[in-house]
Amino acid sequence: MIKVGVVGGTGYTGVELLRLLAQHPQVDIKVVTSRSDAGMPVAQMFPNLRGFINLAFTEPSMETLTQCDIVFFATPNGTAMQSVPELLKNGVKVIDLAADFRLKNPQNWEHWYKMPHACPELLDEAVYGLPEINRNKIKGSRLVANPGCYPTAVQLGFLPLLEKNLIESDSLIADVKSGVSGAGRKAEVATLLAEAGDNFKAYNIQGHRHLPEIVQGLNQVSAQPVELTFVPHLTPMIRGIHATLYANLTQDVDLYELFANRYQNEPFVDILPFGSHPETRSVRGSNICRIAVHRPHNGKRVVITSVIDNLVKGAAGQAIQNMNLLFDCPETTGLQQIALLP
Amino acid sequence: MIKVGVVGGTGYTGVELLRLLAQHPQVDIKVVTSRSDAGMPVAQMFPNLRGFINLAFTEPSMETLTQCDIVFFATPNGTAMQSVPELLKNGVKVIDLAADFRLKNPQNWEHWYKMPHACPELLDEAVYGLPEINRNKIKGSRLVANPGCYPTAVQLGFLPLLEKNLIESDSLIADVKSGVSGAGRKAEVATLLAEAGDNFKAYNIQGHRHLPEIVQGLNQVSAQPVELTFVPHLTPMIRGIHATLYANLTQDVDLYELFANRYQNEPFVDILPFGSHPETRSVRGSNICRIAVHRPHNGKRVVITSVIDNLVKGAAGQAIQNMNLLFDCPETTGLQQIALLP
Amino acid sequence: MIKVGVVGGTGYTGVELLRLLAQHPQVDIKVVTSRSDAGMPVAQMFPNLRGFINLAFTEPSMETLTQCDIVFFATPNGTAMQSVPELLKNGVKVIDLAADFRLKNPQNWEHWYKMPHACPELLDEAVYGLPEINRNKIKGSRLVANPGCYPTAVQLGFLPLLEKNLIESDSLIADVKSGVSGAGRKAEVATLLAEAGDNFKAYNIQGHRHLPEIVQGLNQVSAQPVELTFVPHLTPMIRGIHATLYANLTQDVDLYELFANRYQNEPFVDILPFGSHPETRSVRGSNICRIAVHRPHNGKRVVITSVIDNLVKGAAGQAIQNMNLLFDCPETTGLQQIALLP
Amino acid sequence: MIKVGVVGGTGYTGVELLRLLAQHPQVDIKVVTSRSDAGMPVAQMFPNLRGFINLAFTEPSMETLTQCDIVFFATPNGTAMQSVPELLKNGVKVIDLAADFRLKNPQNWEHWYKMPHACPELLDEAVYGLPEINRNKIKGSRLVANPGCYPTAVQLGFLPLLEKNLIESDSLIADVKSGVSGAGRKAEVATLLAEAGDNFKAYNIQGHRHLPEIVQGLNQVSAQPVELTFVPHLTPMIRGIHATLYANLTQDVDLYELFANRYQNEPFVDILPFGSHPETRSVRGSNICRIAVHRPHNGKRVVITSVIDNLVKGAAGQAIQNMNLLFDCPETTGLQQIALLP
Repeated sequence: MIKVGVVGGTGYTGVELLRLLAQHPQVDIKVVTSRSDAGMPVAQMFPNLRGFINLAFTEPSMETLTQCDIVFFATPNGTAMQSVPELLKNGVKVIDLAADFRLKNPQNWEHWYKMPHACPELLDEAVYGLPEINRNKIKGSRLVANPGCYPTAVQLGFLPLLEKNLIESDSLIADVKSGVSGAGRKAEVATLLAEAGDNFKAYNIQGHRHLPEIVQGLNQVSAQPVELTFVPHLTPMIRGIHATLYANLTQDVDLYELFANRYQNEPFVDILPFGSHPETRSVRGSNICRIAVHRPHNGKRVVITSVIDNLVKGAAGQAIQNMNLLFDCPETTGLQQIALLP
Repeated sequence: MIKVGVVGGTGYTGVELLRLLAQHPQVDIKVVTSRSDAGMPVAQMFPNLRGFINLAFTEPSMETLTQCDIVFFATPNGTAMQSVPELLKNGVKVIDLAADFRLKNPQNWEHWYKMPHACPELLDEAVYGLPEINRNKIKGSRLVANPGCYPTAVQLGFLPLLEKNLIESDSLIADVKSGVSGAGRKAEVATLLAEAGDNFKAYNIQGHRHLPEIVQGLNQVSAQPVELTFVPHLTPMIRGIHATLYANLTQDVDLYELFANRYQNEPFVDILPFGSHPETRSVRGSNICRIAVHRPHNGKRVVITSVIDNLVKGAAGQAIQNMNLLFDCPETTGLQQIALLP
Repeated sequence: MIKVGVVGGTGYTGVELLRLLAQHPQVDIKVVTSRSDAGMPVAQMFPNLRGFINLAFTEPSMETLTQCDIVFFATPNGTAMQSVPELLKNGVKVIDLAADFRLKNPQNWEHWYKMPHACPELLDEAVYGLPEINRNKIKGSRLVANPGCYPTAVQLGFLPLLEKNLIESDSLIADVKSGVSGAGRKAEVATLLAEAGDNFKAYNIQGHRHLPEIVQGLNQVSAQPVELTFVPHLTPMIRGIHATLYANLTQDVDLYELFANRYQNEPFVDILPFGSHPETRSVRGSNICRIAVHRPHNGKRVVITSVIDNLVKGAAGQAIQNMNLLFDCPETTGLQQIALLP
Repeated sequence: MIKVGVVGGTGYTGVELLRLLAQHPQVDIKVVTSRSDAGMPVAQMFPNLRGFINLAFTEPSMETLTQCDIVFFATPNGTAMQSVPELLKNGVKVIDLAADFRLKNPQNWEHWYKMPHACPELLDEAVYGLPEINRNKIKGSRLVANPGCYPTAVQLGFLPLLEKNLIESDSLIADVKSGVSGAGRKAEVATLLAEAGDNFKAYNIQGHRHLPEIVQGLNQVSAQPVELTFVPHLTPMIRGIHATLYANLTQDVDLYELFANRYQNEPFVDILPFGSHPETRSVRGSNICRIAVHRPHNGKRVVITSVIDNLVKGAAGQAIQNMNLLFDCPETTGLQQIALLP
């Protein structure tokens, strides 16, 4: 059994991690921490866990965490980097679901996250936890930077085209729509049901923190430099991301074949028939990314639609997929839930 | 023109008051105050008001408010009572949309609202602003306690039966469902779309602040003492209250006739055919309360369903109805909006 | 492995059955029928099943169905009763998720469902599939009438009180709120998002088909005859039933103890601390019924709140619980999903 | 008073027309027709109209319709064109809210709407009812083709840039999101709350009927031929369209100035400060289109966000704006409703 600690278990990625970990046959959850709610039974805050998780939140302590084989950080940005060096020194593996180890360049981090990095020396070692690109690197690593939700949906959609140099890499567009759980379990006016319900808007068009993460990831596989216009939107649903991606083809290609071949061995990427329209609910609660490709009027523009559950493949599910890789479990262990529809 | 001030314009009752006041032909809005957002243009916070309200929020000041003919308080409970005595002294009429002047008994206030009352000497003078009961008293008053949203829907539903002593007054049940805007525009986890969306729950079964207000109002018209079980619920919609009311008949009566007659001259109470099922959306954005009566299997139990828009007839619209009475305008002035459906 | 057939797999109880059956370790799904959609791959209609169910819908045929160990009917009312006698003759067990075998009295059936019963001789044999009452009878049976969604939530809430004769049985009230999936996957105007969204209404107050089913079930355990006012409501969410139940106590009792003891060995009934407010999302996608008891102001009125997922404990999950009993599997097999929250 | 007839009053554009017409001071509604529901009081189908519209639906008849000054068609595509020639002959003006007279080329109509046009000789005369382009032509016309909802939001967003030849016209993208009322009040599975709720998807990427309408409109103002990729999406809300538009600038320009100047005299187009994010709820129930312009990282790509209420500025409100022009009323008469927020 893998001894697991969860730091910061009171947010949506936290509760989702716990839902999935509690059903994972190889996992023994040792500790769930929360500074603000220490002492409260986890299942009191999250009643879906009644009968499945009997722990209470505890104050984070190195002593307890170092007894784990792996620690997940489901904390705000900038928290994990304070504790990761010591955990690694003690032989504990770490998966950070926040952004602390995603950007390779510490100046880039500082620019977008408005704080200096606490352990820039670890940025090189940290592996970006998108198994569809970095599976082998993840297996041998001890520190995984779990990707953001938007970056997961967008990168998986562009990858096959960029890897083969089939599109103009300098004019990409990602028009992406997210459910409100992506904003986290934070008391904020903007995501109240009375504000975000029955409403649709774009936000952060001028610049969103996931932009540099996406561009860094795409540049890694692209022969030509990537330029991306990224427009996130808030849509009145709870879970789900729908990315609508636009690019200009530089040559003719069988688009369905390209995508189907690229992902044929991927357990969590499902390519729909050419011209399909994947729905976010088809992945609600599941770790699957479903993608379809379109070429309107057979022109040079390709449109890719890519859907994930932002809390599963976009966060907690992908983190467990990474844990399975780190501990040599079959990659799908504990992640076979079928999406809830309707 | 009536010179109007609004204290506390940043909540949902505030923006709804402004929407209605801006369309009222006899109103001149002089000032909208907010301590926290002084300086911000009102239409920046509430973009639906762009082009209709050109004021900015200002710090509340007695100097400005005393230049108004009437001041609405759309503030948290316990705020209005700090300023009302001075406004009245200066000849300004007041309508309080909060609870400060609803309960006649200051001990009752202190018990439910956890603070001593600042001006208990005004409680007798304050008129409870339910025009369907107190129309004449309102006309001559200078201080109106605008009813709560639940109390409006529940009282209008029980009134005709209690006034005629047709039901057992000691076993009433009000099972009431509210949209989340009833909780106000406050940053809180419980009313996030990701929490309250696609979810249904009861709350405060052990005791809700609107219970003493309802009971006080019903006792005023009932020959026998009223006992009420009141269970509020949160339903995943933005606006609307649906009250399902249960009582035991003590004698036979034509229920439709009773209700239709009681409210035949009321411009804002609409009695549907016997056995109908009013929907909250049929009053969305309008000042109307729609009511239908049922008697399942012709037994002794009567079921009344009553719907309002909690922000209109349950708050801002009723406040303007009261203002019309205070200033001798036709009662429906500025309140003829048709509900938005779908 | 249990060879399973599903008749009528194109509705919401159908897809939910398939979601759960596909994850059941003892089940081999042999056939999924649909007259209207024969030939279409199941996973094309329900994309959440892509990769989990590879069957296509087929025309229903006795030949195929009789090769199954058990057949589930997820069909409209009045369909199962046409085929059940022949299936039973062929040694196939049947669980009907519709209402065909729920009411013991064929006149009662005809009155509420507006058609004569096709096999009234089987009504006595059919076991009402509420394991919390009929566990042992279910084990030995070959025909199970799976309870309706409202009846499950309401009966589990009233049972402990009625069994011990602790409430006035002739004045019960069930004020129940359902998500729209309870209306089924039928093309109807009333349940369009643009109609049922952001809206709340009661319906069928004069008489709903689940009323006789509930009363029959409650009478079975009650020493005194049961009279019930049952008011169903439509709430703008997808899944979930919230029953708010009212009764008058005839004697003092420790309500929490009563409920906790009654259900202490029940794997799918969870009693919350006294005075709690269970939420429908705490059971979304799970087979659990969560219940809390309240006694406002310590009076004689008891209020019970009971929540289920209408498609799981209210339909498909309970059917599988019954199947586990029929085939001597541990009762929780394949039903350990944790609710999806948020 | 303008004598008005409404043909096909049972859909969402129908009820919205009636809501607005009932509040229009110059309008006398003479007849509302419906083949399927003749005889039913209008306010029985649409309870928000109780007390405002006392007519019943009647069978459509030339005799009645020719007594009107103007007839609105809120019918399915292909219906209006059957009756328009006779109405025009009788001196009745017509505004068609469907697509019958929007496309100038009858082959184009036949290709997209799968039926031959019944009166192609009127296509030249029909004026496309987008007042922001065709105000003067509308004033003198007798037949107005009211624009579609997507085309209104998209054209108003691109117009200022295309008119001045400031963008590459051959690579436009319109990524547009619509509430479900855009699909109409039709019994369909795909728009049930249980299907479209808490879900997001694109549809008709390969070709949507509004594409040729948009391209025709944009070509009218563009010096260079327009090519557009148009991807519509269904979002889980009732009303509202949010268009996110992408284009490449061919020269530097003050974008805010450009838009503000272009629309400075338009009563129903509101340009927000540069870099703002208009929300659909800011126009819910109102006839206003709100637009903001963005230029991420000051690059060559311009992003325009444009929101309307699909039933108002995208249908019924714009139709009344056109009626005001036809009958020389001030353009804003009856259209001053403030959006409902929250």
